[in-house]
Amino acid sequence: MTLGLASESASGARAEDGYDLWLRYRPVEAPAAGAYRAAASELVVQGGSPTLAVARDELARGLSGMLGQAPPLAAAPGRDGTVILGTPAGSPLVARLNLPLEPLGPDGYLIRSVQVDGRPATVIAGNSDVGVLYGVFDFLRRMQTRQPVAGLEVAEAPKVKLRLLNHWDNLDRHVERGYSGQSIWDWWRLPDVRDPRYVDYARASASLGINGTVLNNVNAKADSLTAPYIAKAAAVADVLRPYGIKVYLSARFSAPIEIGGLKTADPLDPAVRAWWKAKADEIYRTIPDFGGFLVKANSEGQPGPQDYGRSHADGANMLAEAVAPHGGVVMWRAFVYSNEQPEDRIKQAYNEFVPLNGKFRDNVIVQVKNGPLDFQPREPFHPLFGATPKTPLMMEFQITKEYLGFSTHLVYQGPLYEETLAADTWRKGQGSTVAKVVDGSLFGHALTGMAGVANVGSDRNWSGSHFDQANWYAFGRLAWDPELSSRAIAQEWARMTFSNDPRFLEPVVGMMIASRETVVDYMTPLGLHHLMGEGHHYGPAPWVAGGPRADWTSVYFHRASPEGIGFDRMASGSNAVAQYAPEAGRALAADEKNLLWFHRVPWDQRVSSGRTLWDELVVRYTKGVEEVSAMRRTWASMKPYVDPQRHAEVAAYLAVQEQEAQWWRDACIAYFQTFSKRPLPAGYAPPAHSLDYYRSLEFPYAPGRGD
Amino acid sequence: MTLGLASESASGARAEDGYDLWLRYRPVEAPAAGAYRAAASELVVQGGSPTLAVARDELARGLSGMLGQAPPLAAAPGRDGTVILGTPAGSPLVARLNLPLEPLGPDGYLIRSVQVDGRPATVIAGNSDVGVLYGVFDFLRRMQTRQPVAGLEVAEAPKVKLRLLNHWDNLDRHVERGYSGQSIWDWWRLPDVRDPRYVDYARASASLGINGTVLNNVNAKADSLTAPYIAKAAAVADVLRPYGIKVYLSARFSAPIEIGGLKTADPLDPAVRAWWKAKADEIYRTIPDFGGFLVKANSEGQPGPQDYGRSHADGANMLAEAVAPHGGVVMWRAFVYSNEQPEDRIKQAYNEFVPLNGKFRDNVIVQVKNGPLDFQPREPFHPLFGATPKTPLMMEFQITKEYLGFSTHLVYQGPLYEETLAADTWRKGQGSTVAKVVDGSLFGHALTGMAGVANVGSDRNWSGSHFDQANWYAFGRLAWDPELSSRAIAQEWARMTFSNDPRFLEPVVGMMIASRETVVDYMTPLGLHHLMGEGHHYGPAPWVAGGPRADWTSVYFHRASPEGIGFDRMASGSNAVAQYAPEAGRALAADEKNLLWFHRVPWDQRVSSGRTLWDELVVRYTKGVEEVSAMRRTWASMKPYVDPQRHAEVAAYLAVQEQEAQWWRDACIAYFQTFSKRPLPAGYAPPAHSLDYYRSLEFPYAPGRGD
Repeated sequence: MTLGLASESASGARAEDGYDLWLRYRPVEAPAAGAYRAAASELVVQGGSPTLAVARDELARGLSGMLGQAPPLAAAPGRDGTVILGTPAGSPLVARLNLPLEPLGPDGYLIRSVQVDGRPATVIAGNSDVGVLYGVFDFLRRMQTRQPVAGLEVAEAPKVKLRLLNHWDNLDRHVERGYSGQSIWDWWRLPDVRDPRYVDYARASASLGINGTVLNNVNAKADSLTAPYIAKAAAVADVLRPYGIKVYLSARFSAPIEIGGLKTADPLDPAVRAWWKAKADEIYRTIPDFGGFLVKANSEGQPGPQDYGRSHADGANMLAEAVAPHGGVVMWRAFVYSNEQPEDRIKQAYNEFVPLNGKFRDNVIVQVKNGPLDFQPREPFHPLFGATPKTPLMMEFQITKEYLGFSTHLVYQGPLYEETLAADTWRKGQGSTVAKVVDGSLFGHALTGMAGVANVGSDRNWSGSHFDQANWYAFGRLAWDPELSSRAIAQEWARMTFSNDPRFLEPVVGMMIASRETVVDYMTPLGLHHLMGEGHHYGPAPWVAGGPRADWTSVYFHRASPEGIGFDRMASGSNAVAQYAPEAGRALAADEKNLLWFHRVPWDQRVSSGRTLWDELVVRYTKGVEEVSAMRRTWASMKPYVDPQRHAEVAAYLAVQEQEAQWWRDACIAYFQTFSKRPLPAGYAPPAHSLDYYRSLEFPYAPGRGD
Repeated sequence: MTLGLASESASGARAEDGYDLWLRYRPVEAPAAGAYRAAASELVVQGGSPTLAVARDELARGLSGMLGQAPPLAAAPGRDGTVILGTPAGSPLVARLNLPLEPLGPDGYLIRSVQVDGRPATVIAGNSDVGVLYGVFDFLRRMQTRQPVAGLEVAEAPKVKLRLLNHWDNLDRHVERGYSGQSIWDWWRLPDVRDPRYVDYARASASLGINGTVLNNVNAKADSLTAPYIAKAAAVADVLRPYGIKVYLSARFSAPIEIGGLKTADPLDPAVRAWWKAKADEIYRTIPDFGGFLVKANSEGQPGPQDYGRSHADGANMLAEAVAPHGGVVMWRAFVYSNEQPEDRIKQAYNEFVPLNGKFRDNVIVQVKNGPLDFQPREPFHPLFGATPKTPLMMEFQITKEYLGFSTHLVYQGPLYEETLAADTWRKGQGSTVAKVVDGSLFGHALTGMAGVANVGSDRNWSGSHFDQANWYAFGRLAWDPELSSRAIAQEWARMTFSNDPRFLEPVVGMMIASRETVVDYMTPLGLHHLMGEGHHYGPAPWVAGGPRADWTSVYFHRASPEGIGFDRMASGSNAVAQYAPEAGRALAADEKNLLWFHRVPWDQRVSSGRTLWDELVVRYTKGVEEVSAMRRTWASMKPYVDPQRHAEVAAYLAVQEQEAQWWRDACIAYFQTFSKRPLPAGYAPPAHSLDYYRSLEFPYAPGRGD
């Protein structure tokens, strides 16, 4: 009898810990393996560059993992099934094939099954080496997801130019709204020590087509622009460069005062303009392909041009002028609102930026969150999308789950991203989707972009939970093509990350897709929003009132009273609905999913189910909890298809999610009942604890806080 | 031609990243492997317990890694070379062997080559299951270090009862004086999520005989004693329990006020005593084998019994009374000093605690840092050792390198620990070493202990640098036996962690041993101390003066003036030397290594080299830098013997160390020269920068700060 416990763990073999993300490259089973081996019998790579080297290495690594060994490298095709990598400029072999690469632009690629000297081969070609790298990841992905690799006729080009992660990472490695450990950027040890993890970050990001990363928090410190920190950023840039990823920095608007010794940061002051120009020159001397600046200005206490009576355009244009000679861009965030203004918070960004339409320099793009509030479980799309035809807007999604249960809750955000991108702004008639604003096609903008607030941290599995890797993945894929289906993305991710077994895929992808509506149900059903704990944003706290800013409270947004609940944003109220094109506004306001976002509704009003609003709220909250219980059961039944470590970890997280969904339901019902003064529908359990209990809970050590 | 880059990294195989520590269990080469296989042909484990299960699994894992496969498990010996695990109580087979286990106590073990039914076998036996586990690690270590495993006659028992790590880990995962990422204790996700890393922490610690861990910072928050945090600690305790590791907590003395709702924390107040008793009962209900409390009281702003006019003994005894019924202990730290007292800071702990000799309850042990100041590169041993014959003292070493270059500098602390333990207190005549105080033999104490302030964090390699793993290792081995040689420990560690190749071992172990004197040379030669940066303790700052507390400045300690430098601690000065037994004090004060610790010395006074003090200081500082350069060269030549990733990482760190050693030398020389007003000896380069430059350096994001 052999030792019962000489299992994977007892034998010391490394468990699946999530570090490999979707690039696991585990052995492919027969018969697929045979077909893949035949299609990748040798490699021919003509031309040389660091990017081509990493493309070649990635292909070797992937094939070696999936097929048992890497095919030999040859100088020229010498057998059936050669894989040829290269660009027309660097590879005579690729040039000779006369591929229609022209329309694909610098980042696009072709994968074609061709004949070379009478032998079948596959060519992965781009106009640039990074295009080739993207093609390699595509080719590998086809094997990882068990697609055919014969008869290929693939032509791909990204629809969006800037495909960026935004790290809200501080210089002390604390990550604002980070729930996966510390920042992966080890500023302290940089530039001397380059964590091998930076390479794997680059591989994972490049596999999705991500081509830029903003290293530091938008709530920026000026120190990040000092020489020592530029040198640190340069070391990161050196590691990321072969993967086609540019480094950007968040710039603190008052840096000329804080580290420049000036008395002002007025964007129209010549000394200030000269300081930024010199600073940009200094950065580009160290990082020749530096991407540019991201700026959060005059927002939540950050300094900005309005401190000097100047506009956001004045501020952005000054920085844009500084980086323009070097080809850099400025991403200026539209997330601005002021407590001093009596105006509905969600209307303020539109009011601020629509008048600046067309007033920005060519190399400025305005970065707009998906919704007008702040990454809630559901928001209507931001009314700025489509409202500035002369100024390009880029999308800002949040990958990290600040308002979605942190990394502990399983919430696949693909459907959220998709819902926003597919929303119709009607700004140039029906079909004027947000996606078409973002990809520049609606108004003919060449400068386009999509940013995702990263959920990457020092946790071994990168994202805090295994399923949160899917949000990084979905963001990256949608930044490449904003019209992809979130379900198809989930399929692809689940195949690569877990299993190609249909008995696994069908239930798990179904669970992922449903998870977004589930979190809406147990946190903020029917258009409710901003009910979370103060500061840390953990857990339910619809009772938050007072404090430094009314627009940071919960009561500001839900406005519950004995008469009803909801924020009237119709003409009878703040009229925020008027910020949309009429057709779009009508559609949004008529959608019951947005009911309490746009309307103030009496407790007894009937909703589409025929129930009263109060009863419907209770039903929805309860349904959210039940859906999480169902997710737990689904996952438990997936045990045969998942390695033990990841199965156990996901199961543990789902148990937390179930508890916390119950907590959200119970606390919100207990609180809102003090206004509705109505009983729960028959058969619905009362909250487990008193409202006082829920109000008494404190979380002084919640992760990810902004301070 | 096969692909050039299909290397370990390109092929996706995991690099040596340091995660496995000294438990790598890599394949053993012939002919040793053959001998080991013969000696471990099957396993017989009679008796069952979680501890025996992990002992068996560890043996299977180690043998499987080293020898290719784990031997089969058998019900009874059936061939030559059986390994038998067990205790006389649990295993009839072990009982039948009539082994002399009695004298070895609960944690000891025997490993013996025996004959069972006429066949050669090896028995690993203890009085307890954890003794068996320790024996398994010893047996594996013999193979890892290529020692024979035939003819074994091993009898081991720890000389110290409490062998503890102290984690200065906050509840938000920040680690005070931590330079290896965040706390491994993921308090936020506990108790629901148990990081698999906890198991590997337990394995590594148990492999050294560590049997307890204090989970939270001595600068404690009362929250750690609330029910949710007790539940979190209990989850950790559950994971560590099979490995013989008990959980302890740092207790905040004012907790009865902060979380108990009392008006006082006066240790003589009956309500306070009742509160602690109830709190202890509550903890023990959840963690039945809870170890007890560690307390930092009336020190550096922490609350304590003196706030109520009570003594340290009053405070400790109150807590001891609360845990006594459950078998718990109280470790009361002697690290106390007050800025208000005009007395030399290093004298205060002795003055405070010697009068309390014999006034503590039986289950109290006083925890004393190795030296009277604070973990400096060199300090004479703490004068309390040997000075409280009726009160047991435990040793507190710092494994994390707060004052030794953080995790970036290669400093093996074995010689530092050994120097302290081997120091002679002379309290009962010659040979009354600190080790004999610590192991209880000098005064006949049964309660003994040694604590190490952990350097364990979330970094993949646990300790921030690969070589800092050796400090964790050395601490653990010395806690088991304070009389081990630090060189032998370094050998053992280097063999297990890197290579058994003598071409590697000789230079690298030599470098490790020398590294401690090297850091003394480039930071604080000739008895200098406390010259580091303020607050963060990074880098040189001998100019620190003013601020909130004189005894936190550098000038308080070095006292440089145009006349000379050093702290007169002889009868003519603070007379701290009188806190030692006369023979010990004479020896310490006469040792040139402690020159400026005990004496104020004119710049022109000749030292043993024949040089003036000033010249000698410059020579020593310079030598320190040169020694680091030599370490770099040594390491560079070790490339053939070390895997690429670890080799590159250590090399990068050594480059930083060289720069920073130079910085220490230059800044200190530039500063002290303003007093000595003497030229540098001929041939010695002046500092690279001006003193103003060094003084201008700021490090706002230095890791590990105390706030």
